[in-house]
Amino acid sequence: MAARYKLGSQLSRISQRIGGLGINCQFTRLRAISGTNACFYSSKELEYKPLPPRILDIRNQAKAGLIKEGDDITIHGWIRSIRKQRKIAFAHVVDGSSDQMFQLTFLNADDASGLANGMSVKATGKLELVSHIDPYALRVSSVTILGGYSADTTGTVATFPLQKKAMALDYIRRELPALRFRTSQIGSAMRLRSKSIASISRFFDRDGYTQTQPPLITASDCEGAGEVFTVVAEGVAHGEPSKFFGSKTYLTVSTQLHLEALMMGLTRVWTLTPAFRAEESATSRHLSEFWMLEAEVAFADDLENIMSIVERMIRACVSELKQAGDFDSLVDLKRQLDKQQRSDSDRLEDEEVITAEGLVERWDMLIGESRPWMRITYSDAIVVLEQAVSAGQATFQHPVEPDEGLKTEHEKWLAKHYARGPVFVTHYPTHMKPFYMLQTVGSDTVECFDLLVPDLGELVGGSLRQHDYDGLQRAIVSAGLDDPAALDWYLELRRWGTVPHGGFGMGFERFICYIGGIQNIREAIAFPRWIDHCKC
Amino acid sequence: MAARYKLGSQLSRISQRIGGLGINCQFTRLRAISGTNACFYSSKELEYKPLPPRILDIRNQAKAGLIKEGDDITIHGWIRSIRKQRKIAFAHVVDGSSDQMFQLTFLNADDASGLANGMSVKATGKLELVSHIDPYALRVSSVTILGGYSADTTGTVATFPLQKKAMALDYIRRELPALRFRTSQIGSAMRLRSKSIASISRFFDRDGYTQTQPPLITASDCEGAGEVFTVVAEGVAHGEPSKFFGSKTYLTVSTQLHLEALMMGLTRVWTLTPAFRAEESATSRHLSEFWMLEAEVAFADDLENIMSIVERMIRACVSELKQAGDFDSLVDLKRQLDKQQRSDSDRLEDEEVITAEGLVERWDMLIGESRPWMRITYSDAIVVLEQAVSAGQATFQHPVEPDEGLKTEHEKWLAKHYARGPVFVTHYPTHMKPFYMLQTVGSDTVECFDLLVPDLGELVGGSLRQHDYDGLQRAIVSAGLDDPAALDWYLELRRWGTVPHGGFGMGFERFICYIGGIQNIREAIAFPRWIDHCKC
Repeated sequence: MAARYKLGSQLSRISQRIGGLGINCQFTRLRAISGTNACFYSSKELEYKPLPPRILDIRNQAKAGLIKEGDDITIHGWIRSIRKQRKIAFAHVVDGSSDQMFQLTFLNADDASGLANGMSVKATGKLELVSHIDPYALRVSSVTILGGYSADTTGTVATFPLQKKAMALDYIRRELPALRFRTSQIGSAMRLRSKSIASISRFFDRDGYTQTQPPLITASDCEGAGEVFTVVAEGVAHGEPSKFFGSKTYLTVSTQLHLEALMMGLTRVWTLTPAFRAEESATSRHLSEFWMLEAEVAFADDLENIMSIVERMIRACVSELKQAGDFDSLVDLKRQLDKQQRSDSDRLEDEEVITAEGLVERWDMLIGESRPWMRITYSDAIVVLEQAVSAGQATFQHPVEPDEGLKTEHEKWLAKHYARGPVFVTHYPTHMKPFYMLQTVGSDTVECFDLLVPDLGELVGGSLRQHDYDGLQRAIVSAGLDDPAALDWYLELRRWGTVPHGGFGMGFERFICYIGGIQNIREAIAFPRWIDHCKC
Repeated sequence: MAARYKLGSQLSRISQRIGGLGINCQFTRLRAISGTNACFYSSKELEYKPLPPRILDIRNQAKAGLIKEGDDITIHGWIRSIRKQRKIAFAHVVDGSSDQMFQLTFLNADDASGLANGMSVKATGKLELVSHIDPYALRVSSVTILGGYSADTTGTVATFPLQKKAMALDYIRRELPALRFRTSQIGSAMRLRSKSIASISRFFDRDGYTQTQPPLITASDCEGAGEVFTVVAEGVAHGEPSKFFGSKTYLTVSTQLHLEALMMGLTRVWTLTPAFRAEESATSRHLSEFWMLEAEVAFADDLENIMSIVERMIRACVSELKQAGDFDSLVDLKRQLDKQQRSDSDRLEDEEVITAEGLVERWDMLIGESRPWMRITYSDAIVVLEQAVSAGQATFQHPVEPDEGLKTEHEKWLAKHYARGPVFVTHYPTHMKPFYMLQTVGSDTVECFDLLVPDLGELVGGSLRQHDYDGLQRAIVSAGLDDPAALDWYLELRRWGTVPHGGFGMGFERFICYIGGIQNIREAIAFPRWIDHCKC
């Protein structure tokens, strides 16, 4: 299979036929094992062995006129559906490179007789133009089944389990993890993640940020929330398994503190990082393992600095995705799914269901004319909510209590009915927020914001940080943490040349759900983990 | 500090002066709280509040002629060094945006009297052109200390701990984590990581890969190596803490198996992901928490497919970094460091020390003319090593034993003295490699490779995977794993429409060490974790 390089024949020319693609390559061994036992090749003639083109590549080549009707093409993929008529047959093939299927046309239905849904095939033939909606198809001259169905250990070949008719998403997630990424919903969610990451990476790159990887195993449980995982090295001979690192260690719940350390030398840093929370509640909004997008910047002395980054980042990402046409295919898919009405028993009743049209409106709202997004203080937001309730314009399950913070229903209402778009709620009371936030001068609030969006509620949280050594020390004492000494290294960041700074964090799966119109956060991550759920 | 939006004044125009930058912004409230309790702003006039430019931005603007000698500029950063003469004074400031310092010139030495190393400052004045080597400086008209030195809890202000003279890297890592990212070495390593990630992301993006995030908490310990961390949810009321997820869970040692699941729907996938190993040996080559670059591709039936990706990816990344000039500053820094000869007692004696010139040669070797890199089979490599030993051209600590595999010294020798560059060693004996690799037809070897590079040894490992259901089942049985049932989901990947496929993994810190000339892997990651080391 692979090219082999027979040793020992000195100054020989080796002509090789690599793989099955018929690329002829020549290696000239200029100097073979000699007195110095050294040899090297001059082999510019060898082409790298490329992978076969994806369905998207072939589509793009056809669109660009690089391949034309009647040209020979080869398609690799999985059969999504098959339709056999009396004389002819059609199969639709996918390969995950886009949401679109590629049609295989069999002029003799018998040629498709061995094919069935879920099989992987290699099909060759000529490109044909078939319709305006989806112009490209392949008139098959030969087809090879790369992978069919295998019998299980009892020798039984069961029916292909991924049914064409609507299957519950939680059933696929639980029972068919091996086939999950071949469904259009999950494939689409994974592509959206990837494209969003690429876009956000470009945004930070343009703005001079260093992408960093703060640690996941940490010596402190950060905010003392209690819902943390500890890390144990069971198999080791050395000492106590829970103290492999010398003391107890945790999986990070937020990398912010470490990101501040990186910022204190690199000025602008960001990270897309895993974070962990041992939450016992199993809702469609929470995961035990999730990804956080976090950024931290030095020389920021105004909360507006941080909100500007957040707003520009989200606008840039959504605009780029829209311009690249990525949302068009998402809308097409959403339309199909709206018809199918796949159920998901894991989804909570109060989750908003969004239609294809609603999703289009959502993107327009995010990148629309109304900029910047509204800013409102927490105390003003409370007044708005109280007025709305007393005027009978809003009814809530939870009463509006200034000292209790905003519940999700309040957040959703503020964004949807008051701001009619994203809204930054700023300056929450000090007691509601973590110890590290900067106190507002002359007020018992902190320099912080939550970004609320319609239908979801909180999407991003950020603040200026307390950058004064003495001020942070006092804040740590007042916070009454279990182990304040674990934060000594963090306090030390303020001791030599501290700088005003701030940052934010955004749950990445939440963002993907929001821009992708995905109702359950478990469908926005490859292998969702939550209580009692970690099967593979 | 932050812009506030006073509520309640209907249809009012609010003119605001945001922050200290003097940007005048106007908000026109088109519709205030009315019957619908809805309001929104048309506020195109508001500019986002940008962060102050970084030192690199100012340099680039000056280079591009956008700012000229005599123009007003402001520099934010940390004082790296200061030199006071009788009349005038000079300070050098850094902000982590590049390896270069920016000179502040004080025409009156008294103006610099309060300044000292490590303090953060904001300095304004006029741009001046000073020398050919580093043309730009700032003639200071005013300077503000943003952060000085703080007294500790006992009220003592100690000496700034980061000495200008060479300090041991392990001392800084252990004792001064809060100042570590302000050192030129670690700052440079972090920037190199970030730029390499950006480049590799572009490579995979161009080639149509989906970037994915496989899970970190898993239900199986993958290769059964034993050196794994388990995950425990101590604080929870629910059941046994070690069974929060229903059964025992581990931190992943490699995401490959999950990546194969993603590949089985998305065709081409890659990830830059954390991985964990509870290794008890503390060498400068190993970390307990590290990052892996892994890729997996469908429809690959030739090992050459996978080696081509690896070679093209590394060449693309190193070429881009070189073209962007990122290596120039790295070489400058390396030259300075070569002079300082910073010690690192954690570094092992046998680690290769590379000079600035050696590093330049290394990059040229990686992107040079000799392509593709040499390929040699394992059995041929053994013959080469045996011949070299018997001819007295090589001496090794460990004897060359065909059944024992290659030791690091053998790997280094093969790359440096035999291949004189990177070399793919292919087709190792089956018993040396994990169960999932594809058996070579008619031979007791597997379709795998290790990429060896001079001075380091193994940099990348990859293979075609056993994609046949029955074949994989037999391989799992022969491997004699503790809990083969934990791999049922993985086996299931081959049951419906399996495809020939393969992939590779590269330790990301190793790669950064190699291209950055960094001797100790602990200097290539932000917060290194290894046995007994996880302080913050």
